[in-house]
Amino acid sequence: MFLAKVVGSVWATKKTDNLDNLKFLVVNPINLKKEPLTDVVVVADVLGAGIGETVICAYGHAARKAIAPDDPSALSLEAAVVGIVDKIDIDKSKIK
Amino acid sequence: MFLAKVVGSVWATKKTDNLDNLKFLVVNPINLKKEPLTDVVVVADVLGAGIGETVICAYGHAARKAIAPDDPSALSLEAAVVGIVDKIDIDKSKIK
Amino acid sequence: MFLAKVVGSVWATKKTDNLDNLKFLVVNPINLKKEPLTDVVVVADVLGAGIGETVICAYGHAARKAIAPDDPSALSLEAAVVGIVDKIDIDKSKIK
Amino acid sequence: MFLAKVVGSVWATKKTDNLDNLKFLVVNPINLKKEPLTDVVVVADVLGAGIGETVICAYGHAARKAIAPDDPSALSLEAAVVGIVDKIDIDKSKIK
Amino acid sequence: MFLAKVVGSVWATKKTDNLDNLKFLVVNPINLKKEPLTDVVVVADVLGAGIGETVICAYGHAARKAIAPDDPSALSLEAAVVGIVDKIDIDKSKIK
Repeated sequence: MFLAKVVGSVWATKKTDNLDNLKFLVVNPINLKKEPLTDVVVVADVLGAGIGETVICAYGHAARKAIAPDDPSALSLEAAVVGIVDKIDIDKSKIK
Repeated sequence: MFLAKVVGSVWATKKTDNLDNLKFLVVNPINLKKEPLTDVVVVADVLGAGIGETVICAYGHAARKAIAPDDPSALSLEAAVVGIVDKIDIDKSKIK
Repeated sequence: MFLAKVVGSVWATKKTDNLDNLKFLVVNPINLKKEPLTDVVVVADVLGAGIGETVICAYGHAARKAIAPDDPSALSLEAAVVGIVDKIDIDKSKIK
Repeated sequence: MFLAKVVGSVWATKKTDNLDNLKFLVVNPINLKKEPLTDVVVVADVLGAGIGETVICAYGHAARKAIAPDDPSALSLEAAVVGIVDKIDIDKSKIK
Repeated sequence: MFLAKVVGSVWATKKTDNLDNLKFLVVNPINLKKEPLTDVVVVADVLGAGIGETVICAYGHAARKAIAPDDPSALSLEAAVVGIVDKIDIDKSKIK
């Protein structure tokens, strides 16, 4: 899984049917120094993550299982928020 | 999923049988500043995305489920358009 | 899927049994300017792609489905040629 | 799989139900010179890896199988510690 | 699949049960100029690849199928040697 900061949302009226009524966030993966990178990933979210929050995101089956626990393979998505971060403890002495 | 701009199309007469009659677009992933990168990805599309449009693309099972909802594992593809973007809202204050 | 130029072949006498009698090409992914990159990927091919040709390649289940449509999960491979490119149309005005 | 150094932990009260009671570490992939990189990955751990230890991590099904051997597909995670490293032997003459 | 040079081995006494008795190599992916990169990947091996040999490695299901053909999903690994390279033919005129 990766850590990311929520920086926005994306809307698509014309989309794959099985994605109707889902919310898609634009997130910005962060590195060890907690700096946001310029890459973005689009993730589905049912946990209610807000702009500026740090989230744990997962790919693939893990993402679908987070959004539709009873029928994950019915979804055309492969990235989702699986947790909203309260605290990250990094031992700075271990970082180069 | 990733955001990308549609920049072209690709044709292949000689291809895996299960890909017959599908349309393949060349898309250009974009970053947080909405600048296109130079990498390209080939994606299948059944939503009718046009050149210059911004799309949400998905990989793997998610892509196959978008193109062939009833029998996704029958396809030899692993990237597809799953949404045509109407609007991207980015909170610029959250971007480094 | 990704676009690549076929630049060579690779032989391995000692290999996983389920890969016997398959042909493995060395391909070079290309970017939006159609420049070959220095990375290489090893892909299985049953379409007969030749040196110098541009191909569409797929990863994972998609690759196995292209090589063994009737029993894809029997194979220890995860990249394959799924199409030999006739034409790529890129709208240059859309490229930065 | 990849090698990484454990550099911290991450807590998320609000998370996908199927991740309750799991421990999530922040790990730092290392390269051939055993230098930590600045990228981070969030991995689940049931082996008890401590801060500063080097671990082998796996993605996807492999990760879920390590955390929930009896029902891997029930989990919304795709990265996990699968081994705590005792020793790495690198033949330096083979490294550029 | 990717090409890599075997540069070492890694030992982990404490590991996921289903990985007992497997051998894990440290390999170094190579690029088109056959230069080793500094990234490393940990791969399982049952073919007996030795230090300095060039190997073809595969990810995901393909890797598990190479190590445990009869029950691939029982394994917590996602990278394995699937071939030991005898010869790589690269057409240098096709390389930029």
